[in-house]
Amino acid sequence: MTYDVAIIGTGPAGLSAALNLKLHNKSILWFGSADLSLKVGKSEKIANYPGFSLVKGSELNAAFQKQIEEASLEITDKMVTMIAPSGDEFMILGDNDIFNAKSILLATGSFTGKSMPGEDELLGMGVSYCATCDGFLYKEKTIGVYCSAKRYEHEVEYLAELADQVYLWAPYKECEINLPNVEKLESPMTEILGEGRVKGIRQKDDSRKEVDGVFLLRSSVAPTKLINGLEMDGAHILVDRKMATNIAGVYAAGDCTGRPYQITKATGEGNVAAHSILDYLASLA
Amino acid sequence: MTYDVAIIGTGPAGLSAALNLKLHNKSILWFGSADLSLKVGKSEKIANYPGFSLVKGSELNAAFQKQIEEASLEITDKMVTMIAPSGDEFMILGDNDIFNAKSILLATGSFTGKSMPGEDELLGMGVSYCATCDGFLYKEKTIGVYCSAKRYEHEVEYLAELADQVYLWAPYKECEINLPNVEKLESPMTEILGEGRVKGIRQKDDSRKEVDGVFLLRSSVAPTKLINGLEMDGAHILVDRKMATNIAGVYAAGDCTGRPYQITKATGEGNVAAHSILDYLASLA
Repeated sequence: MTYDVAIIGTGPAGLSAALNLKLHNKSILWFGSADLSLKVGKSEKIANYPGFSLVKGSELNAAFQKQIEEASLEITDKMVTMIAPSGDEFMILGDNDIFNAKSILLATGSFTGKSMPGEDELLGMGVSYCATCDGFLYKEKTIGVYCSAKRYEHEVEYLAELADQVYLWAPYKECEINLPNVEKLESPMTEILGEGRVKGIRQKDDSRKEVDGVFLLRSSVAPTKLINGLEMDGAHILVDRKMATNIAGVYAAGDCTGRPYQITKATGEGNVAAHSILDYLASLA
Repeated sequence: MTYDVAIIGTGPAGLSAALNLKLHNKSILWFGSADLSLKVGKSEKIANYPGFSLVKGSELNAAFQKQIEEASLEITDKMVTMIAPSGDEFMILGDNDIFNAKSILLATGSFTGKSMPGEDELLGMGVSYCATCDGFLYKEKTIGVYCSAKRYEHEVEYLAELADQVYLWAPYKECEINLPNVEKLESPMTEILGEGRVKGIRQKDDSRKEVDGVFLLRSSVAPTKLINGLEMDGAHILVDRKMATNIAGVYAAGDCTGRPYQITKATGEGNVAAHSILDYLASLA
């Protein structure tokens, strides 16, 4: 089946767009976490979201979740690692499944993580963003895993079932992984080593680990790695006032389009993007 | 005193901006109605405002009002009829008082009302938008009044105290004005007559009323009449992604900048505009 739209991201921008597209009976493939935005959920107090006086992030997130349920919106918890044009449509790789959609909304949040030295050069040559997609390549091998948040721990566990030895960098509080073949490391990962193929990892204290592959489990992939030829404005996706990118049928909204990084700005852009997508879909008919 | 910012309009865009500027301790002069947006308040059901599932417009408006009170924001219920640059600042005419501000946010809503034939030509020659400003000119005279909404009825009553005879066009439900010298007319006002000076009003049924002046009491004045040289894109104020207009220090947000006419789009733009204004104010310092 070809969906009318694929939305990448379940933060405020994605939510706002999904609500509007659903009202217009469009078929929606919505990728992201059912926990929605961690950035929203962990905000202590939000004082500038119109309609809620001094609300806790967790409360606003709960209101968002209630609304998603009432609107019968569904979330597909798969990591999108590639989007490619395919005729008039787009092909989307989510974990290792292929999906099709007529239009795309990138609502992937701010991409704070700069590439690690070696990451760009060795992508596809031992560097992977997706345990489900590439884990099978490392059966009985030694791998390094950068796990950015608790929600990826199940992927680490999956990798530990396959690999003989896992070196784990988990720079957040309360990492609960405790497996005989997983060694947690304190000194940060600073470089991925190798030429033409991953050979090892350098740490901040200058020690090294030899590995056959590296998994970087982050909340988002850099937009330019998701989709080829996407025009950027520095670290942000370049959009016009309609939230259109330089690629026909591809729109963007929220933190990924630039500052201010604010919930209200994101919901506003999601709304505008949804209406532009409705126009785009009408133009295809 | 010179305010940091004057916000024109108390709809969702103005509110969103005001909340943000207040958090940054800016001095705010906020023009509009304490009833906020009639368009929001009268919405039967709103299904696409993130955080509120299927909310009544009146409930959302009540939440906005609560938030305004808790944020200690004040609304100045005066009709802004002119904004003019004055050195590095702006001079603002609200009713017949003059105010000063370093920056301006136009959040005036969609300006649906096209000018009436004769309106532009006879503005200031018998055509007025402000009862408080110009009413005294029509003592013991005959005037026509177009009253667009209940909230302007007190202005009609004020005019009826001054003028001998008032012809009233009030094309909304339940107009409650009942005064001996006010004649309510059913056939719509279609043209303001006169050359160099208002002489009369033509109605749709082609009958005429002789008048000395005409008051058009609408919720907003066309942006181009508010401020000279403002660049438009058709009926909308031309803005960039920062919500800046072509005039330095003047920003715009909400329905006045174009479609989609949506609460969420307006709050998003108000947020962005507020942050741009903060940058602008910092650049003046």
